[in-house]
Amino acid sequence: MIRSELTEKILDVKREKDLSWKAIAEAIGGYNQIFITTALLGDMPLPCPQAAKAAELFGLTKSEEKMLTEIPMRGRETIMPPQDPTLYRFYEAMLIFGPAMKETLHEEFGDGIMSAIDYVVKMEREPDPAGDRVKITMSGKFLPYKYHEPKDGAQASGARQV
Amino acid sequence: MIRSELTEKILDVKREKDLSWKAIAEAIGGYNQIFITTALLGDMPLPCPQAAKAAELFGLTKSEEKMLTEIPMRGRETIMPPQDPTLYRFYEAMLIFGPAMKETLHEEFGDGIMSAIDYVVKMEREPDPAGDRVKITMSGKFLPYKYHEPKDGAQASGARQV
Amino acid sequence: MIRSELTEKILDVKREKDLSWKAIAEAIGGYNQIFITTALLGDMPLPCPQAAKAAELFGLTKSEEKMLTEIPMRGRETIMPPQDPTLYRFYEAMLIFGPAMKETLHEEFGDGIMSAIDYVVKMEREPDPAGDRVKITMSGKFLPYKYHEPKDGAQASGARQV
Amino acid sequence: MIRSELTEKILDVKREKDLSWKAIAEAIGGYNQIFITTALLGDMPLPCPQAAKAAELFGLTKSEEKMLTEIPMRGRETIMPPQDPTLYRFYEAMLIFGPAMKETLHEEFGDGIMSAIDYVVKMEREPDPAGDRVKITMSGKFLPYKYHEPKDGAQASGARQV
Amino acid sequence: MIRSELTEKILDVKREKDLSWKAIAEAIGGYNQIFITTALLGDMPLPCPQAAKAAELFGLTKSEEKMLTEIPMRGRETIMPPQDPTLYRFYEAMLIFGPAMKETLHEEFGDGIMSAIDYVVKMEREPDPAGDRVKITMSGKFLPYKYHEPKDGAQASGARQV
Amino acid sequence: MIRSELTEKILDVKREKDLSWKAIAEAIGGYNQIFITTALLGDMPLPCPQAAKAAELFGLTKSEEKMLTEIPMRGRETIMPPQDPTLYRFYEAMLIFGPAMKETLHEEFGDGIMSAIDYVVKMEREPDPAGDRVKITMSGKFLPYKYHEPKDGAQASGARQV
Amino acid sequence: MIRSELTEKILDVKREKDLSWKAIAEAIGGYNQIFITTALLGDMPLPCPQAAKAAELFGLTKSEEKMLTEIPMRGRETIMPPQDPTLYRFYEAMLIFGPAMKETLHEEFGDGIMSAIDYVVKMEREPDPAGDRVKITMSGKFLPYKYHEPKDGAQASGARQV
Amino acid sequence: MIRSELTEKILDVKREKDLSWKAIAEAIGGYNQIFITTALLGDMPLPCPQAAKAAELFGLTKSEEKMLTEIPMRGRETIMPPQDPTLYRFYEAMLIFGPAMKETLHEEFGDGIMSAIDYVVKMEREPDPAGDRVKITMSGKFLPYKYHEPKDGAQASGARQV
Amino acid sequence: MIRSELTEKILDVKREKDLSWKAIAEAIGGYNQIFITTALLGDMPLPCPQAAKAAELFGLTKSEEKMLTEIPMRGRETIMPPQDPTLYRFYEAMLIFGPAMKETLHEEFGDGIMSAIDYVVKMEREPDPAGDRVKITMSGKFLPYKYHEPKDGAQASGARQV
Amino acid sequence: MIRSELTEKILDVKREKDLSWKAIAEAIGGYNQIFITTALLGDMPLPCPQAAKAAELFGLTKSEEKMLTEIPMRGRETIMPPQDPTLYRFYEAMLIFGPAMKETLHEEFGDGIMSAIDYVVKMEREPDPAGDRVKITMSGKFLPYKYHEPKDGAQASGARQV
Repeated sequence: MIRSELTEKILDVKREKDLSWKAIAEAIGGYNQIFITTALLGDMPLPCPQAAKAAELFGLTKSEEKMLTEIPMRGRETIMPPQDPTLYRFYEAMLIFGPAMKETLHEEFGDGIMSAIDYVVKMEREPDPAGDRVKITMSGKFLPYKYHEPKDGAQASGARQV
Repeated sequence: MIRSELTEKILDVKREKDLSWKAIAEAIGGYNQIFITTALLGDMPLPCPQAAKAAELFGLTKSEEKMLTEIPMRGRETIMPPQDPTLYRFYEAMLIFGPAMKETLHEEFGDGIMSAIDYVVKMEREPDPAGDRVKITMSGKFLPYKYHEPKDGAQASGARQV
Repeated sequence: MIRSELTEKILDVKREKDLSWKAIAEAIGGYNQIFITTALLGDMPLPCPQAAKAAELFGLTKSEEKMLTEIPMRGRETIMPPQDPTLYRFYEAMLIFGPAMKETLHEEFGDGIMSAIDYVVKMEREPDPAGDRVKITMSGKFLPYKYHEPKDGAQASGARQV
Repeated sequence: MIRSELTEKILDVKREKDLSWKAIAEAIGGYNQIFITTALLGDMPLPCPQAAKAAELFGLTKSEEKMLTEIPMRGRETIMPPQDPTLYRFYEAMLIFGPAMKETLHEEFGDGIMSAIDYVVKMEREPDPAGDRVKITMSGKFLPYKYHEPKDGAQASGARQV
Repeated sequence: MIRSELTEKILDVKREKDLSWKAIAEAIGGYNQIFITTALLGDMPLPCPQAAKAAELFGLTKSEEKMLTEIPMRGRETIMPPQDPTLYRFYEAMLIFGPAMKETLHEEFGDGIMSAIDYVVKMEREPDPAGDRVKITMSGKFLPYKYHEPKDGAQASGARQV
Repeated sequence: MIRSELTEKILDVKREKDLSWKAIAEAIGGYNQIFITTALLGDMPLPCPQAAKAAELFGLTKSEEKMLTEIPMRGRETIMPPQDPTLYRFYEAMLIFGPAMKETLHEEFGDGIMSAIDYVVKMEREPDPAGDRVKITMSGKFLPYKYHEPKDGAQASGARQV
Repeated sequence: MIRSELTEKILDVKREKDLSWKAIAEAIGGYNQIFITTALLGDMPLPCPQAAKAAELFGLTKSEEKMLTEIPMRGRETIMPPQDPTLYRFYEAMLIFGPAMKETLHEEFGDGIMSAIDYVVKMEREPDPAGDRVKITMSGKFLPYKYHEPKDGAQASGARQV
Repeated sequence: MIRSELTEKILDVKREKDLSWKAIAEAIGGYNQIFITTALLGDMPLPCPQAAKAAELFGLTKSEEKMLTEIPMRGRETIMPPQDPTLYRFYEAMLIFGPAMKETLHEEFGDGIMSAIDYVVKMEREPDPAGDRVKITMSGKFLPYKYHEPKDGAQASGARQV
Repeated sequence: MIRSELTEKILDVKREKDLSWKAIAEAIGGYNQIFITTALLGDMPLPCPQAAKAAELFGLTKSEEKMLTEIPMRGRETIMPPQDPTLYRFYEAMLIFGPAMKETLHEEFGDGIMSAIDYVVKMEREPDPAGDRVKITMSGKFLPYKYHEPKDGAQASGARQV
Repeated sequence: MIRSELTEKILDVKREKDLSWKAIAEAIGGYNQIFITTALLGDMPLPCPQAAKAAELFGLTKSEEKMLTEIPMRGRETIMPPQDPTLYRFYEAMLIFGPAMKETLHEEFGDGIMSAIDYVVKMEREPDPAGDRVKITMSGKFLPYKYHEPKDGAQASGARQV
């Protein structure tokens, strides 16, 4: 069994039972909807209690339940650059604003990155008379570049002192 | 003169005068720092009053000032997928969480996209005892897919009624 | 079940029953032929009433009918650049005339894009003694670039005042 | 001298003299704005009378004027897939609706293509209370596929009898 | 059923019955061997009478026979650049001599292309004491570029007057 | 000096002196126009007598004349797949008809290739009341695949006995 | 049946019967081991007598035996650039030494290529106290470039007179 | 001035003065040789004291010294996959052993990554009678995946409890 | 049977039996965990005794056991550049530090490479109060470039004398 | 100064002085022609005595002479897959015969590679009445794969015992 077959089975059950991701996330519990959706689509492992609930909800075998807890080879099914317009807009925003976000990040925090691992993303509706807006909030730990083996006790990383 | 040469000149002056992007954005005024940085890096036009201030700040010719107001061929200088680690992390977050963000967006809003055009991005520091975090907030208008030429007055787009 | 398998089934029935897209679009109703064809090829969802008619026409299961209403991962089956000559000509027209269309758009409307989401396309025959012509009409909403957070009430987007 | 250097010079003069493409097209005359813009950007030759007027307008040498009349190696400067959002939307419309446009074309005209050579494109503003729209009209000759060397006098191409 | 499966079936029967393409083309009749071979490999439709003969020859079902008459998504199975040496030589000839062929075409015919649609290709043996030669003859209609909307009656396309 | 700079100089003189490729080929002599054009565009060497005539015609230095006689790194300036429509049609004809040409070649000649080295290409105008046609004739030596080290005297290559 | 499935079957039998390529080449006979291995991996046809022996050895059906004699679409299964280290080293040697081999070839033989068609490759063990070496000997016919249609009897190809 | 020009200047001086990277790293001080080399090649910023020493050593202007302290767009000059054999071997080791290293990492540490930011690399000679060996030691912080917004206090990341 | 199917079967049994790679490596014995994991994932052969133990552990057939001992086409299943974040970090470290590692290697050892074949990799946990670290140690033989056929007895390779 | 500029200068002098690579290799001495050509084209360093002779021959500055002795970033100027037909044939031979060469190598030597580093290549003319042939002899050290950390004294690498 490979991961994409399990994803296909889960989507089949979701369709048969007419489940929304919101209802699924609530039934499984413990984590937010984007995390649980990412896991069921095959790019995150589910912790054991959540996998058990998912197995119940989707009628999975023991082996399938276990596969849900395994750390996957992530990004296997995603085509880059995206050909889907919804995904492409996220990609484009990074393509156009990425360089300025990099400059801003470095000026505020020093040399380093915003982690995509210690990272949380949320999506909300922003009511607006001119048409509602999508609000995405991403919070990622700043990780300063380590400058290799400074021989004295001075500043050893790219982080800006604040 | 091509746009990347003007960018190079601006960065040379920024270096000579020891300017920060924050100071530049304040001197130019009217728009936030990410927008102004994007414009000076060549991926956005500056409105005329801002271009005039930029010309003064960077000692540009009339022709260079005018070029700053022109709508550029965007994304010309950006390599995708990014080889720079700071940019790559933004890209990776979209690669891993993009499919779940797409599902969540569709479930909440219906069929459509989050605009990358009617779009605002902000970056803030989130103090955290375990290490400060980067908080990015993106707000983009939801654009429902238009379903072509419905012949009656019924729902004509992919937007979910709320 | 994955979407491309459903497309294959639909095309099999279309072949067996000797249906044209025009007849299919009329039987399903409510939307124009290009929209319905795009949906049956897997790049658009069908609204529920149309999916019900499609299910009847093609003899689909309840689950397949439901899949037709799901918002798909678009563009999954399309190879770019196209190797099919008919598709390539559409692509080439954009490759050659795209830059001038961009200039014209910006000069007429200001900074922004022609939406590919709030977008309708039609195809007609243009009789011509020198050989009939294909006429394609595309109508897409102009979306002005939002300039981030202007601090005063002045022009906040790339749209040209008309 | 290579073509992209001449384009750069033309854009420099356009900037210095504060010319719009509309004004340029009117000054040069004889052809529509998209054709003339495409030619000045380096993807079409200008007929001699138009090249003479362009030379006068932009202060070109005899050799540069002659280069404007040469049939160029087209598409040399365009990056595909486009990274510029305005160009990308044109590309995406073809990516998403192209397969259905192909089906519709074949059903209406038979086997063949819509020419991208015997082809005219126009762009207009479509006033709309919900926000003005961009209307693009493309007219291309239908070219039926020739079926190789039929030995009798029967239908020798893919064109549908009408 | 997808087209490549039908191609596979046809090749299986060809192998079982020990048929040559020449014999197949003669049995099917009406068109030359390269056209019929291209159609059976999946890149051209067969007209109905030919499809009927092909169905008889290969023992196809009604549905398979109908698929042979459908206009296919061409080029789906061909890898570019070719990794097969025989195909690569055709590709290489275009890579090396293409630019000079373009110059010669433009000098003789004016601005335009040699159609790959209204196009016939033939292959013959050229006996030669130093080793026989392959002679390929391609005949394609010259299609002059249409220059957009000339406002007077003068030369409206790139074709050279002869 | 690199080869593309010499090509640029030659094209500059061609433009200044208003020379056609036909006139150039006649002035240089000894070989046909496509060969001489290919050489001057940088993908073939010119034999010494021809290089001497080219040097006279274009006013080249001794060193530039010598460069014309050097065997070049071919194909350096050509982008594949072509973005120029005229080149693309040649490419597309090979993409669509290549597989059938391969089958036909093998059936007629056996296992091997049509040489792109011992190869001559000609282009002619084919007058046609429905619009003149471009006729390309390519003649290439058939090269049978050598089957490695047959141990007896039997057929040692893929060539078909005729 | 497609060629890669036949390859898989052959490798299955090879594994079951514990055959070496050397033993297989000896059992099939007539050609050297690299040729026979290439054929069984799907990139060369086997002459009929060899195919018959292969069929016996591997227990193939008549149809499978016939497929072995068909000229294949070569290179279909090979990924380039190679990700396998053994293949990569062959590739890298050509990447690094190729340009000098080209210069040496041209200086010794004139303008042309070393055929990869009329070509034999052998591999041997070269005992060496510092570690045995692999010795590969490739012999390919020199094919001089044909210079198109010289009008007199002078040197008509790129071959150097020796 | 762009970064690659500064790198070129530094390498010119290094050549003129016959400096080794080891001597350079000692002269500049404070950090190890791989860090300082990476910085001078343009992929790391130098802290100010080190930049001052580098400026003295290489005879840089104030502006060039400042550029050395700027956080660069990393990876701009590196071609991937590498065509240089020394770099390719590092790449290949990750290609072949990467998947097992991923499995080992997850089994030992849980779900997460080995940081390439909080990361130190060292290279040493390992004397060996069979030929000296290169020893590379990489130390990177383990970063556990954050599982989004667990609602209770339970395990909130992919890290394994130890 | 192809190798990836065997890998899938092994992973299925690993999941069913709830085995860790550590336990598997111990059960199979003789080699370290990264080697055995790489082999079971399909990128290394297992020596016969280890394959026998693996067959017992995973319930493999004789043929599957034999396949485990075959030298595979390595790297077949790995996508480069990696889309999995854990793999990407290994790749990125080489992308950013590779050029300096190359310089350091050459300065210490002379001209050559660090072998990826005579190569051992180990991974360990490095406890650290600021968060545990991953320590990777790679040891590869230095292979000096052979300089071709020096005619005298002088230094014949790129290795530095030490 | 970058390496490709030095190559260009060397080729300019070679052209001016009408030198052959053979004469250059003899004048520089100590190594064979392919090695010296590779070095002068920028993909190998020259040992100091040879660089001194090259400097004299080509009239190089001290700095340029030194650059010739530096270990270069190899493969920087080579496009893969090659577009030059001479280079392509080398590439194609590896593409078609590579998999069988891999099998043969493994069967004869065991698991490992033929080094492209400890590697010598020679090219010779093989007179043949049917047309002279190019003979390439490559000799590379066999490098057995090291199997990681066997715990006992048994066979520790992929080399076959002979």
